[in-house]
Amino acid sequence: MTRIVLDAMGGDHAPRSEVEGAIRAVRQLDVEVLLVGPRDRVRAELERQGGAEERAIRLIDAPEVIAMDEPLFQAIRRKHNSTIRVGMRLVREGLADGFVSAGNTGAIMAIAKMVIKPLGRIDRPALAAVLPTLSGRWTILLDVGANAECKPVHLLQFALMGDIFARTIMGVESPSVGLISIGEEQLKGNELTREAYRLLKKSGLRFVGNVEGQEIYRGCVDVIVCDGFTGNVILKVSEGLPPFLFKVLEEELLSHAQTEMGALLSRSALENIKRRFGYEAFGGAPLLGVKNVVVISHGRSTGRAIQNAIRVAAELCQKQVPSRIEREMEKLDQKSILLPEGAPS
Amino acid sequence: MTRIVLDAMGGDHAPRSEVEGAIRAVRQLDVEVLLVGPRDRVRAELERQGGAEERAIRLIDAPEVIAMDEPLFQAIRRKHNSTIRVGMRLVREGLADGFVSAGNTGAIMAIAKMVIKPLGRIDRPALAAVLPTLSGRWTILLDVGANAECKPVHLLQFALMGDIFARTIMGVESPSVGLISIGEEQLKGNELTREAYRLLKKSGLRFVGNVEGQEIYRGCVDVIVCDGFTGNVILKVSEGLPPFLFKVLEEELLSHAQTEMGALLSRSALENIKRRFGYEAFGGAPLLGVKNVVVISHGRSTGRAIQNAIRVAAELCQKQVPSRIEREMEKLDQKSILLPEGAPS
Repeated sequence: MTRIVLDAMGGDHAPRSEVEGAIRAVRQLDVEVLLVGPRDRVRAELERQGGAEERAIRLIDAPEVIAMDEPLFQAIRRKHNSTIRVGMRLVREGLADGFVSAGNTGAIMAIAKMVIKPLGRIDRPALAAVLPTLSGRWTILLDVGANAECKPVHLLQFALMGDIFARTIMGVESPSVGLISIGEEQLKGNELTREAYRLLKKSGLRFVGNVEGQEIYRGCVDVIVCDGFTGNVILKVSEGLPPFLFKVLEEELLSHAQTEMGALLSRSALENIKRRFGYEAFGGAPLLGVKNVVVISHGRSTGRAIQNAIRVAAELCQKQVPSRIEREMEKLDQKSILLPEGAPS
Repeated sequence: MTRIVLDAMGGDHAPRSEVEGAIRAVRQLDVEVLLVGPRDRVRAELERQGGAEERAIRLIDAPEVIAMDEPLFQAIRRKHNSTIRVGMRLVREGLADGFVSAGNTGAIMAIAKMVIKPLGRIDRPALAAVLPTLSGRWTILLDVGANAECKPVHLLQFALMGDIFARTIMGVESPSVGLISIGEEQLKGNELTREAYRLLKKSGLRFVGNVEGQEIYRGCVDVIVCDGFTGNVILKVSEGLPPFLFKVLEEELLSHAQTEMGALLSRSALENIKRRFGYEAFGGAPLLGVKNVVVISHGRSTGRAIQNAIRVAAELCQKQVPSRIEREMEKLDQKSILLPEGAPS
């Protein structure tokens, strides 16, 4: 049985959503959940939700909580027994298989690099977002925030990790890989993308070239890579635009008397789409390129989103994605694609 | 009367939308429109639409058309009498006040730099997008594609140009200025944004700090700056996401029998929002930092969008935005803010 550590104090609704997600997960999936947090508080919530009898949920005490907006240096230097740190130690020591948190993304990534450590051949672990698209397929976008500054070879590593993720978790046989740029031709873009294009072209991956922003949600490409600054901006814009569109739509619906009924009827549809779109459906963003499975869930995660994040983490563990990434990196290393002579690394 | 050159062959629906836009403009605004294109073809369209008698529309012959996807070097090297080039020459020679095109953005920007030329103190002209927001106010985002590679001082220049645009065209008394980054604190982001932050802080502009992607459409900041790669990606994602959201919404509406009526009633609302959102309402993106007014309209522009672009161009001319930008740059120069000692430029 796969054992997943769940940071009980991660999200905005912690520990309520976390406890709900843990209960849902152990009831519906073949997992054991190690709930890490201030023991009494978590236990009380577990009792309140009627999950105290679940034998597949274990409580692990961790007294300190890192706040969403807590500065990184403080979170790392001062809080040695934070839920994130205690939870990751369990994973590192083999007492658990994977880690899930809806907490402070910066802190989770930094502590993962310190405690769990990057895979030997990965310079930069990357955060991957799994996006729903028009075509009905998921698109994996990485890096969405782990590395604000990237070199071309990092984008190649992201592509490789995304390819393995798409194969193993999405079941895509031969994933297409694209590169975010601002024009379709090879020479468009900036220095980073032009050199990354060259590396991707000879990588052996099914590289389909540059992808412009408006194509992301069409769902024609399985894996799309970019530096973490660009990826984070894409993700945040994708989060900020829907509320604006929905508000305009509601106004539009309500502005005509004859469509008031339409507005009324559409409300539930709007609620559904809000739930269907974005983080809740997929549940979490995997941090790829560290030695163990780490999945970061959205701060606003509901119990259902947490359950989905646990499901994704368990699947990543069962399919041994970290060690697969390591093996593929070795192959590339042997073909000396990762550090081609004269190429900036 | 303000004279605006309109590239008759710019958009996807050229010359139909252009001619329609020109007719609408001369009937509703105090402008003269110089329609530049293959004379016979444009005249025929003008007659078809009943605009041949409009005395404020003048036809200027330009035999060559630059295609939307035409490589830049070919468009520039081979086509010396393209509609874009002929039109910009008219502006440079003082025969017209401003230029509007819905054509190939890369070609327009490149030819503008060659023919119209950047303002003396501007290193990099920037393309500004005017975005509708939740708050009901417009937000000016720049650069959205003129400069894929930027230095910190360019972002400062963008901020200054955006500030002048917001004051003169939007009527904002003291525009707030933000910097796209991936975290709110000064130290978040990449090298470019950290240094730009420092420059913006002492610029005398009303700098409100870093702005994350999800805040753009809230409409709390008047002017937001970023490098042209990031800005272009933001714009393209904003264009690609709504069709996906609307499709999901329609599916959602149609999936329940009881809301079928809602779906039907909502269709017109969806159409309205599609029209209201994005390029058509504002009409065009001004290229700021060149000696004359240049406005780039969306390739899919309708007649109404073209009319709006002409309106914006005329307003930019009447309010002498290019020379205002030049004067403000001089002031900053004197305060030696633009090239502070030891700062990378």
